[in-house]
Amino acid sequence: VAGSSAGRLEGKLREKTLTLDTLNPQVKAVEYAVRGPIVIKAGEIERYLEEGGTKPFSEVIKANIGDAHAMGQKPITFLRQVVALCTFPELMDSPSFPEDAKRRARRILQGCGGHSLGSYSASPGVECIRKDIAAYIEQRDEGVPSDWENVYLTTGASDGIMTILRLLVSGKDSSRTGVMIPIPQYPLYSAAISEMDAVQVNYYLDEDNCWALDINELHRSYQAAKQHCQPRVICIINPGNPTGQVQSKKCIEEVLHFAYEENLFVMSDEVYQDNVYAPDCQFHSFKKVLYEMGPEYFNSVELVSFHSTSKGYTGECGFRGGYMEVINMDPEVKAQMVKLLSVRLCPPLAGQAAMDVIVNPPQPEEHTFKQFHQEKSSVLGALAEKAKLTEKILNAVPGIKCNPVQGAMYAFPRIFIPPKAVEEAKALGMQPDMLYCLRLLEETGICVVPGSGFGQKDGTYHFRMTILPSIEKLKVLLGKVRDFHIGFLKEYSGLE
Amino acid sequence: VAGSSAGRLEGKLREKTLTLDTLNPQVKAVEYAVRGPIVIKAGEIERYLEEGGTKPFSEVIKANIGDAHAMGQKPITFLRQVVALCTFPELMDSPSFPEDAKRRARRILQGCGGHSLGSYSASPGVECIRKDIAAYIEQRDEGVPSDWENVYLTTGASDGIMTILRLLVSGKDSSRTGVMIPIPQYPLYSAAISEMDAVQVNYYLDEDNCWALDINELHRSYQAAKQHCQPRVICIINPGNPTGQVQSKKCIEEVLHFAYEENLFVMSDEVYQDNVYAPDCQFHSFKKVLYEMGPEYFNSVELVSFHSTSKGYTGECGFRGGYMEVINMDPEVKAQMVKLLSVRLCPPLAGQAAMDVIVNPPQPEEHTFKQFHQEKSSVLGALAEKAKLTEKILNAVPGIKCNPVQGAMYAFPRIFIPPKAVEEAKALGMQPDMLYCLRLLEETGICVVPGSGFGQKDGTYHFRMTILPSIEKLKVLLGKVRDFHIGFLKEYSGLE
Ligand SMILES: Cc1ncc(COP(=O)(O)O)c(C=O)c1O
Ligand SMILES: Cc1ncc(COP(=O)(O)O)c(C=O)c1O
Repeated sequence: VAGSSAGRLEGKLREKTLTLDTLNPQVKAVEYAVRGPIVIKAGEIERYLEEGGTKPFSEVIKANIGDAHAMGQKPITFLRQVVALCTFPELMDSPSFPEDAKRRARRILQGCGGHSLGSYSASPGVECIRKDIAAYIEQRDEGVPSDWENVYLTTGASDGIMTILRLLVSGKDSSRTGVMIPIPQYPLYSAAISEMDAVQVNYYLDEDNCWALDINELHRSYQAAKQHCQPRVICIINPGNPTGQVQSKKCIEEVLHFAYEENLFVMSDEVYQDNVYAPDCQFHSFKKVLYEMGPEYFNSVELVSFHSTSKGYTGECGFRGGYMEVINMDPEVKAQMVKLLSVRLCPPLAGQAAMDVIVNPPQPEEHTFKQFHQEKSSVLGALAEKAKLTEKILNAVPGIKCNPVQGAMYAFPRIFIPPKAVEEAKALGMQPDMLYCLRLLEETGICVVPGSGFGQKDGTYHFRMTILPSIEKLKVLLGKVRDFHIGFLKEYSGLE
Repeated sequence: VAGSSAGRLEGKLREKTLTLDTLNPQVKAVEYAVRGPIVIKAGEIERYLEEGGTKPFSEVIKANIGDAHAMGQKPITFLRQVVALCTFPELMDSPSFPEDAKRRARRILQGCGGHSLGSYSASPGVECIRKDIAAYIEQRDEGVPSDWENVYLTTGASDGIMTILRLLVSGKDSSRTGVMIPIPQYPLYSAAISEMDAVQVNYYLDEDNCWALDINELHRSYQAAKQHCQPRVICIINPGNPTGQVQSKKCIEEVLHFAYEENLFVMSDEVYQDNVYAPDCQFHSFKKVLYEMGPEYFNSVELVSFHSTSKGYTGECGFRGGYMEVINMDPEVKAQMVKLLSVRLCPPLAGQAAMDVIVNPPQPEEHTFKQFHQEKSSVLGALAEKAKLTEKILNAVPGIKCNPVQGAMYAFPRIFIPPKAVEEAKALGMQPDMLYCLRLLEETGICVVPGSGFGQKDGTYHFRMTILPSIEKLKVLLGKVRDFHIGFLKEYSGLE
C-alpha cells in the first residue's frame, strides 16, 4: 500500500483529494448570477443589519430572483387546500375544506401507490396528472391534440431543461454540440451548457425592437457556429426572462421554419405562459403555431415545451413542480429518457399535485371558482400594473432606458455607465454593471442582478430587477434606483 | 441556408435530430434495473389483468422497489400533520392539530421566505432545518460535533449522491476517475458512473461472511484499478442495499484507514441508518467512527454521509427529502458546490419539512410522543419480523441460500440455476437470473429484480426482493417463490 502513515504522523498534512485543482473543471466553468456574488453580499448586509449594524437603509429588498411568495405574494387558497388534503387525508372529513378540493385530492391520491403522497410515482409522473396536463394543453391550444404519454412531470422546469440537454449533449463528442440560446438569457442555460461541456451559441435579441427575436440574427448565429461546432438545439424563452418580451406568432413561425430547415431540436421555455400583461400581446405556444404550419411541420419538428408551478399566478417555487411535453421525439430516445429519469426515481409528489391544480383549476360551475378567480386576477392584475409602473418610472430617469415589460416578471433596463466608472470597474477586475449593482446594494439595500450575468451586447450595460415587490415597495424601490442612478452619473461624470 | 424544403415536400422525410445514434452515448450506457425491463413487464401484466385478462394469479405484487407506502405502510401521523400545517397555515387555528406539530410548522415557516413553503429556499436548504439536522447528528453520534453549515438538504439522497460525484468526476479527464463501489450495489451508483463517464471500480462483498466488506478485497480492487485509472472516491452503503448487512465498527475503521492511506474521498450512504433489525448489530456512523480514530483522521478524511426521508420508519419517498453532511471538504470546493446547487435553485420545501420532522421528532415530554413512538415501533417491529421470516422461509427452500437481513429493506438470496436454464437464457441473450425473474413474474405475479441488475460474482445468481409487503402478503409471496423455485429446478434438471 502506498503512503506511509509514519511520515504523516511526523507532521506532513494529508492532502485533500478534492481541491479547486482537481475539481471537475466543468463545474468550475459554471456561472450562475441570479444567486451569485451580489446575492452573497446582500445576505451579509442583511445579517449585519440584524446584528444591529447601521446602513443608510433599514432593509435589503431582494429584487434579484423571481420568487413571488418571498416578496409577500399570497398562495392561491385552492391549490394549498388540495395539497394539504393530499398530504393529510384525514382532512377529507373536515367541513372547512371545499368539496371541489376534496374531489381533486381524491383523484390525485387514487393515482398514487398505496394512495399516498409518500410513494414514489412512476418516473414520468402520476398517470392521472399527466392526463390532466394533456387535457389542459389541448384546451389551451384550442384543440391541437396532446398525448398524455408525451407529458413528463419534472422537479421544476430546471430539471426538465437539464434532462433534455443531457440527452442532446455528449461531452466527448468530437464535433461538439452547439446549443443556441438567446442573449440575454436565463442563466440556467449557460450554466447547464458549461456543466455539460457543450458549445454555447449566442443569438442576440433585438433591444431596439422590444427584445424581439430577429430571424436574420438566428441565421447569422447558426452560420458562425457551424464553423466550429454542430448546432443541434435551439432554446427559446417566451415570454422572456430577463427581457420580458412576448413573441409574436409570426416570429415563432420563423423560428420553427428555421429549426425545420436546419434540423434543430426546439426547446421552448414557456414557464411564463400565464404572465402576459401588454394589451397588444398574447401568448402563442410553440406547439400550436407548429400545428398551424401544417402536418409536414407538426409531424416532424422535435419540440419540447416546459412549464412550472413556480411562475404564473401561483408562484409556487418551493414545490419544485413542473412538466414538459415532448413531441416528435424518437420512441427509442424516449425510452432512453425514461430510463434516465428512473435513476432519480421521480419528481416530488407535492409538486406534481400542485401542477395538477394549475392545469385543472376550479371551473365556473364549481363553488370554489369565484374565490379562485378573484385571487388569480388579483395577482395577475397587480403584476400588470407593476409592469407598467416599472417601465414608466425607469424611463423617466436620464441614462436609463427600459423596454416595455410585456410579460414574465422582470424589467431589464439598459443603463448608461460613464466611462470613468467603466475604467474603475476594469481596474477592479469587475464588470461595470457589477460595480453599479454592488454600489446600488450598498447604498440603498436594493439587490438586483447585473446584466453581465445574463449576457448582453458588448459595451451595453443592464440590470435585471423583478417586478414582484408590492406596489408600495416597488415605488420606493424605483425612487431609490432613480436617486442612486442620478448620483452615480454625477459622481462619475465629474459633475459633483 | 442549407437544405431545400422543396426536396422534402417531394417526399423526403425530415430526419430526426435526436436518435439512438446521436443520443449522448453516456445516457445510452446507463443501466437501472430497479425500474428496468422486469418492471415494464409487470406494468403490462397489471394492465392486462385490469382489462379483464386472466393469469394464474389475481394481482402483481411489486417487491422490486423500496417504496413502503406503495406496499401499504401508513405514514407517521405527526410528520404529515407538520407538513400539512406548513402547506396550509390556516390549519394553525384548527383544534384538531396538536400544539407540538404547530410549533414545528411555525418554526419551519419562520425560516421560509415570506413564511411560505412556496418560496425557493437558499440552495443548501432552510437554515433552521440545517440546524436541526446538525443537532440530530450530534445527538446520534453522542456528542461528535456537527456544524450546520456542513449540512445540505437534497432532493432525495439520489440528488446528493449525483452532486458529489459530479464534483469528483470529469468526463474529459485523461487519467479517468475511478469510483469504488460495492458489488452488489444499489444501481444508482453504476448509473451515475455511466452517465458521468467515470470508471466503475468494483469491490466484492463477501457473501460467505454475511456480505461483510473485506479489507483485503478493497486493497485488491484498488491496486487492480490503479493500472488503468485514478481511484479517487469510495462509496459504501451501510446498512446495505441490496445485501442487507450492517457493518461492524471494526470494518468501518478499516475502510476509513484505507481511505486515509490512499487519499480517497469517502461517500457513505447511510439512508438505512434507522433500519437495523438483527439484535447483534448496531448502526455506526462513519463520522463517529472517524472521530474515534483521533484528530489526525477526523480532521483530514473527506467524508460525506447521505440520509433520506424515503427509508427508515417514515418511508416518505414521494417527498424527495434528504440531506448530506460533508466534512473536511475544501472550502473553495464547497463554494463551487453551492454554486452548482444554485443552478437547480433548491430542494423541494415539503421534503425539507419532512426531513425536519425526522431529525426533530416528538420528545418524551410532548403530547404527541406516545402516538409517534407507537407508530414508529410498529413499523420497525414489523420490518424486523419480516426480515427474520424472509430469511427463514427462503433458507428452507432447496437451492436458495439467504444471508440474514440484518438491516435495510431487502433480501438478496442466492439462487441455484440449473445449467440447462443457464444455457436457455444465454440462447435468448438474457442473464440467467433475468430469465428466472421473468418466469417468476409471469407464473406468480411476483415482481423482484434479478441480481445481475446489482452486480454479483460471475457464475452466481440472485434476486432482490423487498421485505415491505404486509406479513400476510409476504407469507403468500414467499410460499409462491418456494413453489416456483422447486418447479423451476425440476423443469430444468430434467426431473419432470
Ligand atoms: C425562463 C425560466 N425557465 C426556467 C426556470 C426554472 O424555474 P423552476 O425550476 O423553479 O421551475 C426559471 C426560473 O426563474 C425561468 O425564469
Ligand atoms: C442505498 C440507497 N441510496 C439512495 C437511495 C435513494 O433514495 P432517495 O433518492 O429516495 O432518497 C436509495 C433508494 O432506494 C437507496 O437504497
